[in-house]
Amino acid sequence: MIVLRTVAEVREFRLTCESVGFVPTMGALHAGHLKLMESAVEENVVGIGSIFVNPLQFGAGEDLGNYPRREAEDIALAEGVGMRAMFCPSVEEMLGRSSTRVTVSGVSDLFEGERRPGHFEGVATIVAQLFGIVRPTRAYFGLKDLQQCAVVRQMVADLCMDIDLQFIETIREESGLAMSSRNGYFSESDRAWAAHLNRICRVVAERLVEGRDDFNSVFGWGKNELSRHRFEVEYLDVVDFRTMRPVQSVDIYSRLVVAARFAGVRLIDNLAVIE
Amino acid sequence: MIVLRTVAEVREFRLTCESVGFVPTMGALHAGHLKLMESAVEENVVGIGSIFVNPLQFGAGEDLGNYPRREAEDIALAEGVGMRAMFCPSVEEMLGRSSTRVTVSGVSDLFEGERRPGHFEGVATIVAQLFGIVRPTRAYFGLKDLQQCAVVRQMVADLCMDIDLQFIETIREESGLAMSSRNGYFSESDRAWAAHLNRICRVVAERLVEGRDDFNSVFGWGKNELSRHRFEVEYLDVVDFRTMRPVQSVDIYSRLVVAARFAGVRLIDNLAVIE
Repeated sequence: MIVLRTVAEVREFRLTCESVGFVPTMGALHAGHLKLMESAVEENVVGIGSIFVNPLQFGAGEDLGNYPRREAEDIALAEGVGMRAMFCPSVEEMLGRSSTRVTVSGVSDLFEGERRPGHFEGVATIVAQLFGIVRPTRAYFGLKDLQQCAVVRQMVADLCMDIDLQFIETIREESGLAMSSRNGYFSESDRAWAAHLNRICRVVAERLVEGRDDFNSVFGWGKNELSRHRFEVEYLDVVDFRTMRPVQSVDIYSRLVVAARFAGVRLIDNLAVIE
Repeated sequence: MIVLRTVAEVREFRLTCESVGFVPTMGALHAGHLKLMESAVEENVVGIGSIFVNPLQFGAGEDLGNYPRREAEDIALAEGVGMRAMFCPSVEEMLGRSSTRVTVSGVSDLFEGERRPGHFEGVATIVAQLFGIVRPTRAYFGLKDLQQCAVVRQMVADLCMDIDLQFIETIREESGLAMSSRNGYFSESDRAWAAHLNRICRVVAERLVEGRDDFNSVFGWGKNELSRHRFEVEYLDVVDFRTMRPVQSVDIYSRLVVAARFAGVRLIDNLAVIE
């Protein structure tokens, strides 16, 4: 495993790679990340990952300071699935004198974008920069962060970046809870209970497909069911993945999206309405 | 000469080019553009230009509708200096569903950025997109648009675009008037008179270097001299090219910058204070 610390080091290494599958992460790797990395390794000559806890995408009062950091462990995990190099830059190396920002409107207006002002600007800016550094052939993102996928997709299309994006379905714990680096914030019993989020969402999706009740009634039922299970619901809706706008009928682009707080942790999840 | 209309056509052509010198323009080519193109042809295996009158960089009430368009003539001129291909996309091809914007703060805060809100966002966005499409080895910009050079330089550094930027000194008419596609808006006699702008600025630069008077006195004298010659001065200052901030002493990064209206045309110019 090659650990790269500077842009110059990545540039030099990149010259030796015919095709690159790139997996940008904020570290604290779990099975979801490793799935992305396995795909990157399988589909490209070289897999390169990055670990950068991006301050631009954390809002005031969010968990930037507490965000789990365990670089040595992460590098070992990435090596285990065949990644060739990991880019682990300092904040100074990435953002030292930076004053450029990339914003993607429309697709970032609602849901996470509405509740986390500046979040997707931070994501888009750093992803654009990482793409500039790594020049990947393909880049891999987890659908767990659905709106992030949609934002990156729109940015890549708009700025005509010649990168093949691969979005990989969410990996879940046995309970159904979506893998997330933030799941470590839970106690063991709360972590088990948090799985109700996905279970209830699957029922909501089934009811939407059945079509016996109108969408609003189904969402009302779902929100009520989540509240009964001690989730504070922020939103529960169905969107077209490409626009991240609510829809009133479902097709293959439809994803049920949810955000809720439970036991002091903010959870997001989403799933295809039509499997 | 190969005329490319779509992103897909550029991508395909690009595969055949070992190194590319890229000259983005808004058309209405003059000797300044041709100088950039000559450099691109000389320093790279292939020279590619673009002609795109970018609506994003024109403000309300600016001259988007009147901006000179003469594609066939421009293509012939580019061919004459050895350019291999010109990318001439439609507005729809470039901006059809685009909602991504690139902003560069700091370097764009003053001067043109202050007076033309949104201008540099429009420039940075389209230049980033053109760079994504063409993937140039080197890109050429004229120092006539000094702050544009500074904005592109900052963007390329911040987003770690692997592009070698070349800034080429302004080409002037025999009178000293900086070449500009907008000079065509003048009557013949006004165009001759407009050369006083550069003449007076050269005297201002000399006085700054002499150092007998403080900067403010010299700028006061220069503004007065310009007014006497019927220029409405918007600004006259000395900046560090890298930051586009005013400086109080001069070095090799110092440029005298000026904007003034004359005969209904807004002129900008700049020159190295130390030759």
